[in-house]
Amino acid sequence: MGLSGVLAPVLTPFGASLDPDPARFLRHCRALLDEGCSALAIFGTTSEANSLSLEERERLLEYLLANGIAPGQLLPGTGCCALPDTVRLTKQATQAGCAGVLMLPPFYYKGVSEEGLFRSYARTIDRVPGARIYLYHIPQLSQVGIPLRVIQRLRAEYPGVVKGIKDSSGDFENTKAILRAVPGFEVFVGSEKFLLANLREGGAGCITATANVNARAIERAFRERSEEAQRAIDEVRAAYEKLPLIAALKEAVARKTGDPQWRALRPPLVELSEEQRRLIPA
Amino acid sequence: MGLSGVLAPVLTPFGASLDPDPARFLRHCRALLDEGCSALAIFGTTSEANSLSLEERERLLEYLLANGIAPGQLLPGTGCCALPDTVRLTKQATQAGCAGVLMLPPFYYKGVSEEGLFRSYARTIDRVPGARIYLYHIPQLSQVGIPLRVIQRLRAEYPGVVKGIKDSSGDFENTKAILRAVPGFEVFVGSEKFLLANLREGGAGCITATANVNARAIERAFRERSEEAQRAIDEVRAAYEKLPLIAALKEAVARKTGDPQWRALRPPLVELSEEQRRLIPA
Repeated sequence: MGLSGVLAPVLTPFGASLDPDPARFLRHCRALLDEGCSALAIFGTTSEANSLSLEERERLLEYLLANGIAPGQLLPGTGCCALPDTVRLTKQATQAGCAGVLMLPPFYYKGVSEEGLFRSYARTIDRVPGARIYLYHIPQLSQVGIPLRVIQRLRAEYPGVVKGIKDSSGDFENTKAILRAVPGFEVFVGSEKFLLANLREGGAGCITATANVNARAIERAFRERSEEAQRAIDEVRAAYEKLPLIAALKEAVARKTGDPQWRALRPPLVELSEEQRRLIPA
Repeated sequence: MGLSGVLAPVLTPFGASLDPDPARFLRHCRALLDEGCSALAIFGTTSEANSLSLEERERLLEYLLANGIAPGQLLPGTGCCALPDTVRLTKQATQAGCAGVLMLPPFYYKGVSEEGLFRSYARTIDRVPGARIYLYHIPQLSQVGIPLRVIQRLRAEYPGVVKGIKDSSGDFENTKAILRAVPGFEVFVGSEKFLLANLREGGAGCITATANVNARAIERAFRERSEEAQRAIDEVRAAYEKLPLIAALKEAVARKTGDPQWRALRPPLVELSEEQRRLIPA
């Protein structure tokens, strides 16, 4: 019943006025499922979700559901700075029957206590019956990580609710520590670099930005669990890691679809320079 | 016509269900104006503004205006991660006739370019005619600072719109550099520690958390510009800086008003421990 495999944090396309474009979004979602993604982590970091208003996220989710994307294939990001915002998005996703939600901790206040972090999740859970939560650990962006003790406490108090984690720290020792300390937890790595390692340790898969452009190969690596398939995806990942990742992925989708509007990003992100464009893998 | 003096980033009181309490908020706002605050920087960091939904901020502002607080005495915080959110709050404040808005840069994405940061402000300004913007530089929390070159570019392109800055970096060399490089800019320091120094360099005043509990003395230091008055406020500030600041200020207001509900904080913040409570200045 849990999630596994390769999930894409789906890029969000913007129109000429920088409004989200639901039709382009739907086409990209369908393509990613066709290419082997097991589910779609819409409204992740790569989706520029934190550059979207709540209403924009709500409307995009409604549009996908109204157009044949099954809720069980969706893992929307719902973690905001403000508790009522996180509750509102989590409620929408839960009531729609989504596979789960991927939840950032509140990320404005820094140096918060473990108690405060625990309460942020606990108060959300209290307010959304039936939620299925995947924690989102991405300290290099949120600056607020989720320590193992908080994970264990949440899992102990809400075992049917707190289902897993996306570990985007890039520190596989942290991923391993979670896998060993939290039995039954669905652990996703945030980069396919660690896919094979994660699977060997009992992990569930990966939720990775580059699935937006390389889903077939990453899915093959998930299925085959071979060093060779892992090496092939490592090369593509390494090329993208030299670039501002979100802008580079949008550039690649613009090329693949022949649709230059895909290059649009909301500030504070900016499009690639000419020189950076030349570094995109063919 | 500009702002000057001592502004308080007003604490936001929460009721038993952790909803904002407009009546307590209004009472506290009135008290701060009575004690000499020249204006109220509602919805700042100290206000837990990033723990409030947009609707909560909108309703609190409406409540103050409906109850006799003059818009010219208000400098609401309006900077959010998402451009449409910043535009929405800035529009409300501008149309209500507020003295200005205090605007955080979008703070989720880290390592953003100066071009991206400039565009974040510029696209907001394009969408809100008549806005009067005070930049909010608080890198230790936002992790996204506002470099001098971005300030200069914004001031050059929007001289009637970008009026000033709150420098909460705690680095007075940075404050001085802004004062010297941007003539006519209204520069506020984020701590009264630098009040006298700022005034001597031509700064406009301070916007300081501790004004919530020590406004009279800080206003006196602003008016007198004496070393003696500065020393008196430094002592109080130093005592609060040993504690989690927002929780400590709420504790002090709870004591002063005899109203224990003032202790409530939204997660991820937590109330003081017993030991910490004993360190609050009398």
